[in-house]
Amino acid sequence: MATELRDLLRVTPGGKAELAGRDPDDTPGFKGKKAKARTELDAMAPVLADLQERLFAASTGGDRHRVLLVLQGMDTAGKGGTVKHVIGHLNPAGCRIRAFKTPTPQELGHHFLWRISNGLPGAGEVGIFDRSHYEDVLAVRVHHLVDKEVWSRRYAEINAWEEALTRDGLVLVKVFLHIGRDEQRDRLLRRLDRTDKHWKFSRNDITERALWPHYRKAYEAALERCSTRAAPWYVVPANHRWYRNWAVSRLLLEHLREIDPRFPPGDFDVEEARRRLLAE
Amino acid sequence: MATELRDLLRVTPGGKAELAGRDPDDTPGFKGKKAKARTELDAMAPVLADLQERLFAASTGGDRHRVLLVLQGMDTAGKGGTVKHVIGHLNPAGCRIRAFKTPTPQELGHHFLWRISNGLPGAGEVGIFDRSHYEDVLAVRVHHLVDKEVWSRRYAEINAWEEALTRDGLVLVKVFLHIGRDEQRDRLLRRLDRTDKHWKFSRNDITERALWPHYRKAYEAALERCSTRAAPWYVVPANHRWYRNWAVSRLLLEHLREIDPRFPPGDFDVEEARRRLLAE
Repeated sequence: MATELRDLLRVTPGGKAELAGRDPDDTPGFKGKKAKARTELDAMAPVLADLQERLFAASTGGDRHRVLLVLQGMDTAGKGGTVKHVIGHLNPAGCRIRAFKTPTPQELGHHFLWRISNGLPGAGEVGIFDRSHYEDVLAVRVHHLVDKEVWSRRYAEINAWEEALTRDGLVLVKVFLHIGRDEQRDRLLRRLDRTDKHWKFSRNDITERALWPHYRKAYEAALERCSTRAAPWYVVPANHRWYRNWAVSRLLLEHLREIDPRFPPGDFDVEEARRRLLAE
Repeated sequence: MATELRDLLRVTPGGKAELAGRDPDDTPGFKGKKAKARTELDAMAPVLADLQERLFAASTGGDRHRVLLVLQGMDTAGKGGTVKHVIGHLNPAGCRIRAFKTPTPQELGHHFLWRISNGLPGAGEVGIFDRSHYEDVLAVRVHHLVDKEVWSRRYAEINAWEEALTRDGLVLVKVFLHIGRDEQRDRLLRRLDRTDKHWKFSRNDITERALWPHYRKAYEAALERCSTRAAPWYVVPANHRWYRNWAVSRLLLEHLREIDPRFPPGDFDVEEARRRLLAE
């Protein structure tokens, strides 16, 4: 493959996010429709599963690598659906899934990265975050939950923290699921049409939606200030679920391939072990 | 369905476990072979997924029910494979998977149920434990890691703790994956045949295997003393992977059906919400 998908979707460190110039209906790096995406995903699945098993196996031999997929996006952008999709390719026993909701009083009694640290994947694991520490410069900023002085220093704190983690073997894949405002309205309306989806809806969804321009601005700030060489942001157009799934799997695959985890050798004599088992 | 699978596999509270009388090759409650089991599993999958979504949805309306699948069994019995299989039917974002290994020094500084409590599923979640607090009356007993006085009081402690949790809405499904000793030898030998499986093998597997009769005795004690009305044990013959998968899914299904979780009603005016979205 000449170009990797991550080169197409990355927010250039130090550059602009330019969300207005990125069409949420677009399918960068992919030519074709839903059926072809599904075929390619089916081909990717065993490769991802094998890489994950190698990652886990390598950790038993002392390799410290682990992967963290961070999913951010407006309501209905498909964070939950992406978690479900990605995990379908992996062995869930080696995954650490966390959804970060409104912080509890205990969590608020700590630095904002405390609860995030507690949910990190360990060596050999793949972590998947549905929302993350970025909410502390997104919802928190939009709703003025802390002073500007506090949230504005968080970008640098995040960058320093993420860089230290990547130096220690954590591979961060930060994905912004980019949907359009009209698409969000359609998705909310579809939830209203089905009584078995009403539990997913709250009046709050409509008031949050009214803050769209403020969220847009906060997202652009986060994507621009925290897309670093150590941990860049990727913008995945997410109006098409099939493209979103294809792209996130592809990004994971590219990062796992770069780690290139290897099965560790056994620490025992194979022939002797076989003899002992057969001699019983 | 006249008879439920759980009635066939349950260790009668107050009764004997009689592992010697239970054939690990047997397939109680199932007539047929692998292909038929797969067909039935495919039919069960959407039913399980729907029940899990209802369980989660109900919790957003205040329902405290949650489910915990506890998997125990000798090495190679298929605990990890069962986790992978079961999760394939569910939305992993609503699952809490924990594998309990040798306790850390910090964990050993607490009561043995401390680390287990920390891993419990919350309302609406399905927890899956690969090993559990039962290791504290199994491996710990077999290896004399604590005095008999200590491990022997743990059965009653476990029963009291489990009963309190079930009163609070936790539904426990405790499964012993029952394999034969010859089957274990074959599985260990197969691991030796493949260099990409050597990382799963250790000399320790052979020394543990030599303790088979001691483990058998410890398992029988745990199954007999801790199969209670509130939280019975189920013995699943596990020489056939396809039966094991079918049976565990079936047990989960029966317990979820008994909970009968319902979607909560929305706490908003649907028509007003629709008007507001369309009026923008």
